[in-house]
Amino acid sequence: MAPARLYLDWNATAPLHPAARDAVLRTLDMFGNPSSVHGEGRAVRAAIEGARRQVATLAGADPAHVIFTSGATEAANMVLTPDFRMGRTPMAIGHLYHSAIEHPAIREGGRFGKDRTTEIAVTADGVVDLDQLQSLLAGHDKSTGLPMVAVMLVNNETGVVQPVGEVAKVVQGHGGLLVVDAVQAAGRIALDINALGADFVIVSSHKIGGPKGAGALVSRGEVLMPRALIHGGGQEKGHRSGTENSLAVIGFGAAAEVAVREFDERNGRISALREQLEDGMRNAAPDVVIYGADQQRVSNTTFFTLPGLKAETGQIAFDLEGVALSAGAACSSGKVGESHVLVAMGRDPKLGALRMSLGFSTTDEDIGRAVATFTKIAARRKPAGEAA
Amino acid sequence: MAPARLYLDWNATAPLHPAARDAVLRTLDMFGNPSSVHGEGRAVRAAIEGARRQVATLAGADPAHVIFTSGATEAANMVLTPDFRMGRTPMAIGHLYHSAIEHPAIREGGRFGKDRTTEIAVTADGVVDLDQLQSLLAGHDKSTGLPMVAVMLVNNETGVVQPVGEVAKVVQGHGGLLVVDAVQAAGRIALDINALGADFVIVSSHKIGGPKGAGALVSRGEVLMPRALIHGGGQEKGHRSGTENSLAVIGFGAAAEVAVREFDERNGRISALREQLEDGMRNAAPDVVIYGADQQRVSNTTFFTLPGLKAETGQIAFDLEGVALSAGAACSSGKVGESHVLVAMGRDPKLGALRMSLGFSTTDEDIGRAVATFTKIAARRKPAGEAA
Repeated sequence: MAPARLYLDWNATAPLHPAARDAVLRTLDMFGNPSSVHGEGRAVRAAIEGARRQVATLAGADPAHVIFTSGATEAANMVLTPDFRMGRTPMAIGHLYHSAIEHPAIREGGRFGKDRTTEIAVTADGVVDLDQLQSLLAGHDKSTGLPMVAVMLVNNETGVVQPVGEVAKVVQGHGGLLVVDAVQAAGRIALDINALGADFVIVSSHKIGGPKGAGALVSRGEVLMPRALIHGGGQEKGHRSGTENSLAVIGFGAAAEVAVREFDERNGRISALREQLEDGMRNAAPDVVIYGADQQRVSNTTFFTLPGLKAETGQIAFDLEGVALSAGAACSSGKVGESHVLVAMGRDPKLGALRMSLGFSTTDEDIGRAVATFTKIAARRKPAGEAA
Repeated sequence: MAPARLYLDWNATAPLHPAARDAVLRTLDMFGNPSSVHGEGRAVRAAIEGARRQVATLAGADPAHVIFTSGATEAANMVLTPDFRMGRTPMAIGHLYHSAIEHPAIREGGRFGKDRTTEIAVTADGVVDLDQLQSLLAGHDKSTGLPMVAVMLVNNETGVVQPVGEVAKVVQGHGGLLVVDAVQAAGRIALDINALGADFVIVSSHKIGGPKGAGALVSRGEVLMPRALIHGGGQEKGHRSGTENSLAVIGFGAAAEVAVREFDERNGRISALREQLEDGMRNAAPDVVIYGADQQRVSNTTFFTLPGLKAETGQIAFDLEGVALSAGAACSSGKVGESHVLVAMGRDPKLGALRMSLGFSTTDEDIGRAVATFTKIAARRKPAGEAA
């Protein structure tokens, strides 16, 4: 019999947390349309508003400032737009500046044209370059509208925490708007929209153990808001139309609640496991390159290159041993593409890199097995310089 | 003890069908990211592709032409755009013509500005006016781009079937594109995108007993397509980015499969129940006005005004008796607004109208109770002309 699978790809998606699973099961028969006036509708509405409070707490925000979407990608497309409203008055956003290591949902620029989007470079350790941001904003042409800056709080491939607090000061100094993709940060490092100085924060349900199909655009205030991306029935105060995905939203709320409650315990434990993992990897292959190891990283992520092993080959080798990890981010086509994060860090993307990411159900035994598998695969790779 | 609730608001949303429920339960532990290369990802991918075939069958389409979205509202916003692509070549759509009784998701016009949107009138029975469509298209300024026409297949309030086949001929005669909102038609009348002559058909999961949070934009071909509304990771062949909502999509597929398989039995039974309901209503209140009763209607819907009873009052009275129905469509705010469908039909919207809509689990006994409740409420209303 094949051994049970070992899942180490939590940055791609997390298994459903038991609390979220219970919430989903409880919601299965709660089927009313939350916009309906009758009892069935009101019951669902109340549960959705409970989830809104839970997600607000996750982001340190006011529940009134949480807009539920179908996921982080939709939230990004909603907020990345030149077309804002100050109350009912149109207000133009002139240009989008985003880091070179953002997720494609941000890098695609939403409703900004390519000519209105500029990348901000990162260092070799994968940290956004504050000096470049400063000089880009100094050169921003205000006659086109305010500048918008998008910098993720935690990079999905390296796990490196970005200096968002400092970014916020720069952005505020230039009267701009700051959008923070906190998808990989939520539940892993402290997240408070006010403390960060962000105008908008994006979070996703399925990365924290909630169901797929829910995310949120969280705002610091509600005066300056993007024009809706999805129009229709006027749900979510007109910011996002369409019958609410009650099942996913309520599961999202439950996962958010646990992530907040178990924050210290979970991250302390996972952080120790990651240390154990990286120690084991370095013992087995002293030449392993672990990216961002000297930087502040989120507790659960290890992004590495094993000289002599192509990431694509490595991923298949691990998969055959029953270990799910990824070669960079899960990409749309199911194919392994070149990592734009490695390229932005000025690293040679030829070999690529592998990512192991842990989560709330990862155990000591899992790490033992991960190290043993790593050791086995490292032992049979070609000599360095000769890609397998 | 309060009697069990009787749900007669299936056009707002349906309870989860047992088959969809089973599919959701089976999917709870199938948690991989469908874009991941490893085994966990591939398992989810396979299940999603199965659902795509099931939804394609529901719409008489090629599975390759089904794009999953977060729901019908998103699908409408995606396709209603002046910005199309013929392969990679931009192709402008000049103007949107939609019927006056479309759902707000269509009436809001998606990415068309208000100045590029025109309403097509309907008759007093709530049927789109073909002559007006003809003359509007004859006056269309082709220099701005092709005309786009949006006509729903079944109206959500009245249940009246629209002459979409004839609409298609008119639209084709003017070289336009036809978008058909088939949300209320799917599973209730024959639906075949090719037979209809539609270029795009929109369907929704939760109206046919699938989970909320999934819908699809179905196309007849794949050469002429709208520019994506949601950009990012490139899922759904680049037409719709964001991690797929596997749970809802797989449940949607299961509900679609049953809707197709049980089509004749279900609609035959429901049609007889609706007749029984309307006979009972007419017996209890001969002055009841049932809209579209002389038109071809979908099997499950009754939209009526009881002289002397305001719809808002009536809805609360039914709710207190344990019966969930609606005053027109479920609207975003939880408040009962004026029905734009009644207005478009030239009816006095002051009293409003009530809608009872049936579904796959509605029974003989339910109809008996609905008639008894109707009779009770009709008996205590104020004399006609004096709104309660």
